[in-house]
Amino acid sequence: MQKAILLIIDGLGDLPTPKTPLQAAKTPNLDRLAKNGINGMLSPIKRYIVPGSDTGHLSILGYDPAVFYCGRGPFEALGLGIELQEGDVAFRTNFATVKDDRVEDRRAGRIDTETASKLSKGLSMKIGNVEIIFRNSVEHRGALVLRGPNLSSNVSDTDPHQEGVLQECVPLEDSWEAKRTADIINRYTEVARGWLSSNPANKGRKLPANALMVRGAGAYAEVPSFFERFKMHGLCVAGGALYKGVAAYLKMDVALVPSATGGLKTDVRAKAEAAAKALEGYDFVFMHIKGCDSASHDGNFNAKKKMLEKIDKVIPILEKSGASLVITGDHSTPVSMKSHSGHEVPILVYKGERNDKIKKFDELSCAQGGLGHIKGKDVLPLILNITGRAEKYGS
Amino acid sequence: MQKAILLIIDGLGDLPTPKTPLQAAKTPNLDRLAKNGINGMLSPIKRYIVPGSDTGHLSILGYDPAVFYCGRGPFEALGLGIELQEGDVAFRTNFATVKDDRVEDRRAGRIDTETASKLSKGLSMKIGNVEIIFRNSVEHRGALVLRGPNLSSNVSDTDPHQEGVLQECVPLEDSWEAKRTADIINRYTEVARGWLSSNPANKGRKLPANALMVRGAGAYAEVPSFFERFKMHGLCVAGGALYKGVAAYLKMDVALVPSATGGLKTDVRAKAEAAAKALEGYDFVFMHIKGCDSASHDGNFNAKKKMLEKIDKVIPILEKSGASLVITGDHSTPVSMKSHSGHEVPILVYKGERNDKIKKFDELSCAQGGLGHIKGKDVLPLILNITGRAEKYGS
Repeated sequence: MQKAILLIIDGLGDLPTPKTPLQAAKTPNLDRLAKNGINGMLSPIKRYIVPGSDTGHLSILGYDPAVFYCGRGPFEALGLGIELQEGDVAFRTNFATVKDDRVEDRRAGRIDTETASKLSKGLSMKIGNVEIIFRNSVEHRGALVLRGPNLSSNVSDTDPHQEGVLQECVPLEDSWEAKRTADIINRYTEVARGWLSSNPANKGRKLPANALMVRGAGAYAEVPSFFERFKMHGLCVAGGALYKGVAAYLKMDVALVPSATGGLKTDVRAKAEAAAKALEGYDFVFMHIKGCDSASHDGNFNAKKKMLEKIDKVIPILEKSGASLVITGDHSTPVSMKSHSGHEVPILVYKGERNDKIKKFDELSCAQGGLGHIKGKDVLPLILNITGRAEKYGS
Repeated sequence: MQKAILLIIDGLGDLPTPKTPLQAAKTPNLDRLAKNGINGMLSPIKRYIVPGSDTGHLSILGYDPAVFYCGRGPFEALGLGIELQEGDVAFRTNFATVKDDRVEDRRAGRIDTETASKLSKGLSMKIGNVEIIFRNSVEHRGALVLRGPNLSSNVSDTDPHQEGVLQECVPLEDSWEAKRTADIINRYTEVARGWLSSNPANKGRKLPANALMVRGAGAYAEVPSFFERFKMHGLCVAGGALYKGVAAYLKMDVALVPSATGGLKTDVRAKAEAAAKALEGYDFVFMHIKGCDSASHDGNFNAKKKMLEKIDKVIPILEKSGASLVITGDHSTPVSMKSHSGHEVPILVYKGERNDKIKKFDELSCAQGGLGHIKGKDVLPLILNITGRAEKYGS
């Protein structure tokens, strides 16, 4: 049966200044697919709603975030390979440099991953009857999980989100569970500060990683798997922890591509080859490339354009796989705004659909495309349809 | 932060005969904005649903009429500056000429506003424990409010809606409250007839305003304010009472522009200047121009075309304000139909969105536009997005 690759180019959509990066970039392969396929515009959630990275992906993968979104923390933890249990409360974390309770650097001087890994040893522990699991990821990033009875995710961040005072964790609802969870986080924060401050791995660092800040609490709850819902064995090929986490949440398998870093220097070719090869064992590949979004957040038009050209070069690898291709983004991140926006994202569908008169894959061309304007929730039904997997409704 | 003006041209959309008024009119300024902005088609409520003036505006202003529509009466009362209280039952009213219980003229010979104001004195009163507040507006028009315990808006109109017998108000549900409300309206109708018949202001009138007819009962209920929901301080610039009433219902401020009459001779320039100036103190201006709808109801193609050209001339005032502009209608009123219709309305968005290849602002061009086909409920999210005010959903 026909298989499919869904390629999400993070932060793909942009605004014209006077051209968009996608208009300015040389992308002969994407343009050929646009010409031979069908094109349109996608609202990942709803028209003009600004998607988060987590909610945008959930929606495009067929999981309405209004029903299935449980906060950012669990996705980060799952993306780091922590196996969550029902009721676990998970947070994103940052190593930070704190002096007299003031956060001097939210990333501890963008600490290197190796040093962060050394510091991490000893940051998992038990407080009362609650098990605390910590795992670091790239540079200052990591995830923290609380496991035990009577916990609540309705607690505040200790991360001030900008330079400022390290916050106390407070309950956001009037419940014993939220109060107890906030107390545990505050006690853990103290213990971690002690452990980190005296840690030899911090020796000589101008900006020592002497605190661990948490944010984005979410309580994990199991959801129906991607296979249960769409009857396709799915694989995720991604660099960033969040995207792997979203896939793990849906119980997709996650590929190990060591050179896929999630940065601008990620090995796009290795990812494309992994995606194409995976079709031997999988029906569906969700492939994610982060670089364009990072370039947009930095306001770097040229870096976004170059990343698009780099992606374009490996498109033939996906094409040769014989799979149906759906290529789009999880949201727009206009370089001029340096943030996610609610503008639509171009989408391209190759094989299994009709074609249209569009010859270039960009925001303006796709707005004239034969697909019209669709929503995230339409993407999986589209894929089931073009691969001949859709079941008849009625008889 | 970027601000926005939403210009609603009432009854804007039309059908081709063989051109639409918007195609026939010379509108170089609207066309320039169409060329430099992005265009599409708007269904104010849902595809092919014929909007009322009240429900169309509610929907475009982000208030689903299925949830927030409380009947026409309260909007008219609010538009006349009556401060409503929770549970008040309000009606639209007409001064009429009645002979032997037959309505001879539903508008009492389109009585002048000055005479109507004289007659109005003494029409507010108390019946039992119910306070009755009457206020006249332009010509024969006015609003009546019942205030007191145990009232219901589920009662019929006394207005026969065409020449015929003055109706008795009857309860439309089997409740004591509806029965009591109908009784009060019937007693009030008698008292008002007596008062008006013997009123010296009616002396010498061939068609005396000797009765007050009610219709469109609605019970007022407070709704979350526009500011609460969209975090923008909003101002309404309109002539007609209904539109001011919709704005007051959402707790927007309402501008006083004495030369804005809501008719074909309204001072469009004064309105545009008021809208542009208001941006000093407001984030959002809802500007309403009624004339095109009135011309359509009269089946007057040329008057509609001329009104569009008059509006076009003041577009540069809005443009120069620097605000993002969204220009559309609350519904189509095809001249050939002389009534509201469910046809889509063209919409134009200038600044903060992408552009497209459209060069003329009319029904046929906009249907090819880059925005595609959107709904009333998309308009406020669109405005929040293009002004950089939209909050991310998720993280």
